[in-house]
Amino acid sequence: MPSVCLCLTHVLGLCLGLLCLLFVTLWSAHWRGGFSWDGSALQFNWHPVLMVSGLLVLYGYAAVVYRLPFTWSQKKRVWKLVHAGLMFLALVLSVLGLCAVFDFHRFIHVPHLYSIHSWVGISAVVLFAVQWALGLAGFLLPCSPLWIRSSLKPVHSWIGKAILILSVTALLTYKLYLSVLFCSSENSTEPYSSLPAEAKFVNSLGLLIVAFGLVTFGILSNEKWQRPEEDAESVQVSMDAVTGTILLLIIANV
Amino acid sequence: MPSVCLCLTHVLGLCLGLLCLLFVTLWSAHWRGGFSWDGSALQFNWHPVLMVSGLLVLYGYAAVVYRLPFTWSQKKRVWKLVHAGLMFLALVLSVLGLCAVFDFHRFIHVPHLYSIHSWVGISAVVLFAVQWALGLAGFLLPCSPLWIRSSLKPVHSWIGKAILILSVTALLTYKLYLSVLFCSSENSTEPYSSLPAEAKFVNSLGLLIVAFGLVTFGILSNEKWQRPEEDAESVQVSMDAVTGTILLLIIANV
Repeated sequence: MPSVCLCLTHVLGLCLGLLCLLFVTLWSAHWRGGFSWDGSALQFNWHPVLMVSGLLVLYGYAAVVYRLPFTWSQKKRVWKLVHAGLMFLALVLSVLGLCAVFDFHRFIHVPHLYSIHSWVGISAVVLFAVQWALGLAGFLLPCSPLWIRSSLKPVHSWIGKAILILSVTALLTYKLYLSVLFCSSENSTEPYSSLPAEAKFVNSLGLLIVAFGLVTFGILSNEKWQRPEEDAESVQVSMDAVTGTILLLIIANV
Repeated sequence: MPSVCLCLTHVLGLCLGLLCLLFVTLWSAHWRGGFSWDGSALQFNWHPVLMVSGLLVLYGYAAVVYRLPFTWSQKKRVWKLVHAGLMFLALVLSVLGLCAVFDFHRFIHVPHLYSIHSWVGISAVVLFAVQWALGLAGFLLPCSPLWIRSSLKPVHSWIGKAILILSVTALLTYKLYLSVLFCSSENSTEPYSSLPAEAKFVNSLGLLIVAFGLVTFGILSNEKWQRPEEDAESVQVSMDAVTGTILLLIIANV
């Protein structure tokens, strides 16, 4: 019986993810002039939207599918495919997000990859691609032996959470996002209410990103919220119990 | 038998933590004019050093003490006290780090707490204080009942990791740290080699902070690296096995 707490946490995560998408899209569309794919700043505007959609929200949703209680009565293989499919879509969006910024850099002749934001971000995407390929080979290919699956599982789970941390960190160190705050009156003696509306808006977006990351991380970290299943170990324990009982009965009859 | 991998990961975490401390101290001392406690920018320089020392490095070291293999043969209560003591020291350093920046703000008449960095940072410290107090009441006071301990443990473990994520995020969104990068030539067509030495130095500090966070998180996330102990559940399983055996013997004799 799934706990009410798990269901409420899923609903909270879903809402926070949708709010992240809404805020980042509104920011690019309303304050930053909208979208285009021509190498200009309007192409660059796709970068935050695609990274938040792919590397954070869809990634987060895909990561928790096994922990949706209504899937527990269904075949695991189906949900493995859903997990892999959503992750692939998240990866494609993230790579498109990178293309947007790389194209823009080429257009305005700016070198790539030399801020902490870009290093953390590119590490997250590369790790994500490796994780996806290893996951496919280890968990979906029928020829993959059981010992590989059981060895890979804790590593897959740890790297999955590490990508989420890198993703949140990369999004919050995003230069354009922060430059809005830098234009704010933080160094003056003005109160918070005098900050420009855009600065308040992106501050809220930042908090939503952190909140979504922590809620997703919370769902993934609680061992009691795992999909209930008979794994190799519990099967072994049951087999031991059966063997023990038979042995005792034999002894008793002897 | 602890795995070589666990020991190597501990050594890696120790080295990364020490490097974080070295880099942040060198940065404040060499590039930012050193330290003082007079409300000036030199008092502000204590802020990054104390936050990295308390909220990241010492916090991280304190979080993994139960997973040091040489402690496994020793009494758990002793290591609970070491864990609580180190965490208290980390909390004191973090609060002193906050005092440094609050004093500086008062000195130059700047309002407090209105950047995403400050919000994430203050959330981390408040959560840390609550976590410490709850941990003390739940795990160290002898009058605390077993059911409270077992209910609190997963929450304590999750909030502990969440504080680590908030801490890494807060450190990387630190304004002064980022302003160095903003003064860099990122918007020009210059290559990375033309960045000022300080910008390269703080970029490296940022990467060290992320690496330390991920290694600590990795040690905490691997279930196989937990301190081996007879927990309530396994005692219950053993009790069930004993009861079952006795029942079978009684039935057999009847």
